[in-house]
Amino acid sequence: MTEQNSPFVGETVFPIRYAETDAMGIVHHASYIVYFEEGRSAYTRARGRSYADMEKDGYFLAVTGVNVRYKRAMRYGQQAKVRCWVTDAKSRTIQFSYEISDAETGKICVTGTTDHICLTQDGRVSKFPESWSTWFQD
Amino acid sequence: MTEQNSPFVGETVFPIRYAETDAMGIVHHASYIVYFEEGRSAYTRARGRSYADMEKDGYFLAVTGVNVRYKRAMRYGQQAKVRCWVTDAKSRTIQFSYEISDAETGKICVTGTTDHICLTQDGRVSKFPESWSTWFQD
Amino acid sequence: MTEQNSPFVGETVFPIRYAETDAMGIVHHASYIVYFEEGRSAYTRARGRSYADMEKDGYFLAVTGVNVRYKRAMRYGQQAKVRCWVTDAKSRTIQFSYEISDAETGKICVTGTTDHICLTQDGRVSKFPESWSTWFQD
Amino acid sequence: MTEQNSPFVGETVFPIRYAETDAMGIVHHASYIVYFEEGRSAYTRARGRSYADMEKDGYFLAVTGVNVRYKRAMRYGQQAKVRCWVTDAKSRTIQFSYEISDAETGKICVTGTTDHICLTQDGRVSKFPESWSTWFQD
Repeated sequence: MTEQNSPFVGETVFPIRYAETDAMGIVHHASYIVYFEEGRSAYTRARGRSYADMEKDGYFLAVTGVNVRYKRAMRYGQQAKVRCWVTDAKSRTIQFSYEISDAETGKICVTGTTDHICLTQDGRVSKFPESWSTWFQD
Repeated sequence: MTEQNSPFVGETVFPIRYAETDAMGIVHHASYIVYFEEGRSAYTRARGRSYADMEKDGYFLAVTGVNVRYKRAMRYGQQAKVRCWVTDAKSRTIQFSYEISDAETGKICVTGTTDHICLTQDGRVSKFPESWSTWFQD
Repeated sequence: MTEQNSPFVGETVFPIRYAETDAMGIVHHASYIVYFEEGRSAYTRARGRSYADMEKDGYFLAVTGVNVRYKRAMRYGQQAKVRCWVTDAKSRTIQFSYEISDAETGKICVTGTTDHICLTQDGRVSKFPESWSTWFQD
Repeated sequence: MTEQNSPFVGETVFPIRYAETDAMGIVHHASYIVYFEEGRSAYTRARGRSYADMEKDGYFLAVTGVNVRYKRAMRYGQQAKVRCWVTDAKSRTIQFSYEISDAETGKICVTGTTDHICLTQDGRVSKFPESWSTWFQD
């Protein structure tokens, strides 16, 4: 989860939503997977593109693996800062890493990685289209 | 929300999921909209069809309105019973009604209706295909 | 849903999340209920308070009703603008109204209301504490 | 993820919900984390207890890690079968393993593990109460 492989880090800050909490009074652990996805979206937006464009080009970034470590619970009333960067990019696969912190205190709450594979619309594994692969591997 | 318009009532029972609760310790109010949808699925399954088939036929049941009344909070550990029936069916629109109760005590917790319109894959309003409209209006 | 009862309108803009879409390719209808809640949070933040404080004071704003009208589907890639204001405030109850639009085009996509009742921590209906009721009724 | 450490396997089958799908037409990857949780609930129910009781006893099973491998996409119209068993149980921590398959074909779609730590209501790490630890380690 070192950032050394990518000079780019996407970052987004948003308030914790009440719906994302559970009866323990804290953010439900599955909600952070959605925050990771928000981080990925922020990453592509920060680099001037949108994942929506990739789908318009006929390619999908299917998730093949998720790994999450929970260090500190978050609660309604806090702002989550999500940072996202690429830790591995090959012709057909890509790995993103994430760090979610309390935007006010800077304390790291959750870290993780997601692994993805490039699929065409009919569900076949494919190389990333060149315009995307050069961009990911920058 | 009388049942008199439809002789059919779909019914399904499932445990409340922890992820559906919020920091108040109760089921989050948006979760019941998903329970309604489960009730709709149970209704079509009970009648020997699946909404998945309708989409395969090229039609979508888009939601145009939702109305919910919350009477009693539900919690993790309870089983939700969802009952669903048709209260209005026209050539292009359909209304379902719902009743969610605690499966053990029978106490009614949430009631509501959803309004839908038939769309084709390209997003145009359409009459329901005949095989579905006669079925809904039975 | 007129705004005339309240001089205050909370407003927040955020990107549609991929997780909020469904197999129709559009935002799932239950997701807008969570957007409404985000609008409520924005409303209280805009007025210098947080709903988290109300819970710290020992009071809860339980939802008793939700009403939603869906006019136009939203998709991943769009930014949702949520506007929220108070349309009715009594000693024990409050109603919020909402308007969700595409932040870029300004086109209204979803409107609705939510009704709430004030509860104490042990679940009893209560008058709003004075610091909150005068604030709501401003 | 061998089952050899536990003679008990919790199992539950439920229909995929439309709300759990995303614009790719498949179940969103975060939804499976909730299916895992359903598997955990099924495990405790199968063994004659409920996680709700553990919370009533004043203990919480906080999630410290999640690991998921996605092999095959699931879709609305399918039934998910979730199997859950204990792969490691110590005085303060427990690990569950999961296997999610298509209930009809038996094909494995998603596997994973979750790691948990026992907390008291005030958020301190604790040994599991004896009635639970002997039960987990059976």
